[in-house]
Amino acid sequence: MADSWSGSGIDVHLDWRPETGRPGLADAVRAAVRSGRWPPGAAVPSTRALAADLGVARGTVTRVYADLAAEGYLHTLQGAPTRVATAGALPLSAPGPVPRELAPRWDLRPGRPDLTAFPRADWQAATRKALQRVAAADLGYTAELGAPELRAALAAYLSRSRGVLTDPQRIVVCCGFSHAVALISRVLCERGVTEMAFENPSLPLYREIAAANGQRIRPVDVDAHGLRVSELDSPAVVVTAAHQYPMGVALAPERRAALARWAGETGAVVVEDDYDGEFRFDRRPVGALQALAPEHVVYAGTASKTLAPALRLAWLVLPRALVEPVRAAMAGSGARPPLLDQLALAELISSGAHDRHVRRSRAGYRARRDRLLAALPGTVRPQGISAGLHLLLGLDRPGSPAEAEVLAACRRRAIGIEGLGPCWHGERGPGGVIAGYAAPAGHAFAGATQALVDALWEVTG
Amino acid sequence: MADSWSGSGIDVHLDWRPETGRPGLADAVRAAVRSGRWPPGAAVPSTRALAADLGVARGTVTRVYADLAAEGYLHTLQGAPTRVATAGALPLSAPGPVPRELAPRWDLRPGRPDLTAFPRADWQAATRKALQRVAAADLGYTAELGAPELRAALAAYLSRSRGVLTDPQRIVVCCGFSHAVALISRVLCERGVTEMAFENPSLPLYREIAAANGQRIRPVDVDAHGLRVSELDSPAVVVTAAHQYPMGVALAPERRAALARWAGETGAVVVEDDYDGEFRFDRRPVGALQALAPEHVVYAGTASKTLAPALRLAWLVLPRALVEPVRAAMAGSGARPPLLDQLALAELISSGAHDRHVRRSRAGYRARRDRLLAALPGTVRPQGISAGLHLLLGLDRPGSPAEAEVLAACRRRAIGIEGLGPCWHGERGPGGVIAGYAAPAGHAFAGATQALVDALWEVTG
Repeated sequence: MADSWSGSGIDVHLDWRPETGRPGLADAVRAAVRSGRWPPGAAVPSTRALAADLGVARGTVTRVYADLAAEGYLHTLQGAPTRVATAGALPLSAPGPVPRELAPRWDLRPGRPDLTAFPRADWQAATRKALQRVAAADLGYTAELGAPELRAALAAYLSRSRGVLTDPQRIVVCCGFSHAVALISRVLCERGVTEMAFENPSLPLYREIAAANGQRIRPVDVDAHGLRVSELDSPAVVVTAAHQYPMGVALAPERRAALARWAGETGAVVVEDDYDGEFRFDRRPVGALQALAPEHVVYAGTASKTLAPALRLAWLVLPRALVEPVRAAMAGSGARPPLLDQLALAELISSGAHDRHVRRSRAGYRARRDRLLAALPGTVRPQGISAGLHLLLGLDRPGSPAEAEVLAACRRRAIGIEGLGPCWHGERGPGGVIAGYAAPAGHAFAGATQALVDALWEVTG
Repeated sequence: MADSWSGSGIDVHLDWRPETGRPGLADAVRAAVRSGRWPPGAAVPSTRALAADLGVARGTVTRVYADLAAEGYLHTLQGAPTRVATAGALPLSAPGPVPRELAPRWDLRPGRPDLTAFPRADWQAATRKALQRVAAADLGYTAELGAPELRAALAAYLSRSRGVLTDPQRIVVCCGFSHAVALISRVLCERGVTEMAFENPSLPLYREIAAANGQRIRPVDVDAHGLRVSELDSPAVVVTAAHQYPMGVALAPERRAALARWAGETGAVVVEDDYDGEFRFDRRPVGALQALAPEHVVYAGTASKTLAPALRLAWLVLPRALVEPVRAAMAGSGARPPLLDQLALAELISSGAHDRHVRRSRAGYRARRDRLLAALPGTVRPQGISAGLHLLLGLDRPGSPAEAEVLAACRRRAIGIEGLGPCWHGERGPGGVIAGYAAPAGHAFAGATQALVDALWEVTG
């Protein structure tokens, strides 16, 4: 297993097996240097002596020494003995595999689609087609704003499914919705806009990303008609118009018109976060706000809710004046989505497989929402329109348990769910829990619902 | 094709075909509002009148009006006529498809592998396996630092192929090398480090990205032994140790040791840009500098040169103390690479297909380099070691043509190639052109070489 060598002033031990050959010998010397067993500055064994000791050809040792001198481990000087280099390396600590985050036993985390329903075969077929068709030249450095094929497919898709008014040239494909928020925040920053209004309550993550990219966050209240547009007093605002997150209300028609008018009059930028716009259950989805004011509204969509978050694909439809600034911010961020994924999504949309998947999902989520509503005890107040992937259970009725109590009871049952608390900016409003009914696998939905109902009864009983 | 309606004070024309049904009618009304033909504030036709005019059921028009009121196009009030909303939308201009960037006829652009050799079948098989094996729960929001499978595969690969000293926990997977540079720049910025040294000359792109993320750029000269380490006086430096870009020299052993020692003594951060470390032709590749000082050197690698830039996959091996700051910067950037691509690369590496592809590529590029060298006229001076994807042709010999002349002659022949000029920071040093011999398809290599030789003869002849 190991050979040892002593002489020339240092006692060395090389952990080398002959069958690993020259590369293995080089590794053994590197290890000896790094561990300090061949200490910095010490003369190393002569090639003749080490070769004899190890029973290898002298040329082997000479090559290894030359390699390691080139790497800086050893120091050679004409006419002087080869020495260990004087720059030592710190030993590595705490190695080991990367820990994995586990999904909860009953997954009711909001904002997640049923990942067991991800259309693997369709995605596989779309990837295969993309790989077969892509020109070799396109596998180089990719277009900054996204693959032309996907931008064209998205323009058509967003127009017919969400009423977005666009052409491919104003669409930008991003590495997920968070990337889009970061880019917009930076673009606004560079234009001197350093305050963004967010709905209160809203998802904390995007507020955090905007803040990390130079924005002050101004909370604006949400009521039963959505964002209180009349209270806006910021040069930019992020709004979940079709289905407010987390309250679940839709922005009322008057407020949509008022918001578009306000943006036009003040020159403010409205970011329409259309995260789950495909999922309206009681009627045709309300079209995107963007179409009312395409030069003032940034429309933002994502594949995370219709397909899977792990795809990391999202898109912006931009006012014409923002296309070049966003391109520059994209270049500065250094991040662009990979080409093949973009081509696969374009193929999925063009082939109709995406629409079929969305239709199936919509029917499934609608049924889940109805079943969850029917099972809930009267101590919680389900809020919002019939849409999306989550249901806010308000805890503001007489006899409602406290949010922390419900969350603790859910944790005891290994239910993944979220409290309304962190969605408030600053002072907390009424309590609630946000149940993501889309998240569990089909076979686990009844169990997850029952576990939640049990948890609610426990803390009210 | 179209119906028109007039009455109630406004003259309207709806571009509606009956076979498009209710969605088509809604689109027609939206178009009328957006175009201004149904002007803001005007009363719209009554449902009865419009239904009669179009020959459809009154309920159809009622539903369309309700939809458009919900979208904010129309404004309804109890007991009053429905009106067009007062927020108008600007018309979109200049629609059309996204223009495509074309590859040059003779592609000798540096930094590009032969994309016609991209192992499509291997990548397809790896993607299929990734899709078959991935747990549904993993398709949700992905681990910030990268997929555990890929981090483990990279740890093993980088250790054996590049002598990198690592464990999976200090590896971070990024959306391409540019993203990695942006992240490091931001992390340094947040730690109060706002000056980064770059080799002079060096690739302009990374200097630009560092500058966009808050760094002042300090150029440090390169000579025949690589970066002049003794001239370093910045808290951070980016170095292409194995194969300097664009000069093509390797960092001399003494300088490698001195750089590691300097970093250890001063606490400076060294970013080792190992962009083409897999491609050494005349000997085993010199191992990574990182192993000399893993707590001071950030090792950065990429799939762009071994596989394809369009994959947008790169990785950092970090000093332990930088893992958490880079994670935070990653979250702030909002960008992470998609899971399936990461799993596919992990599979490609683990299966041995990646190594086979690198070996094939290495042999091919070596032969190309030799053929290019043999064909070059004596008026240019090929520089650098036998390695990588590019060859710098120095234009500093007696009788050498000027860089601009060579570039112009190349343009006339539709050769894609780059000048050394933009690589200089500040004052320009000697002229040269950077020929990327890896870029052309195998069948086009001879033609590209001949075109380049013709261009060189033209401007010297």
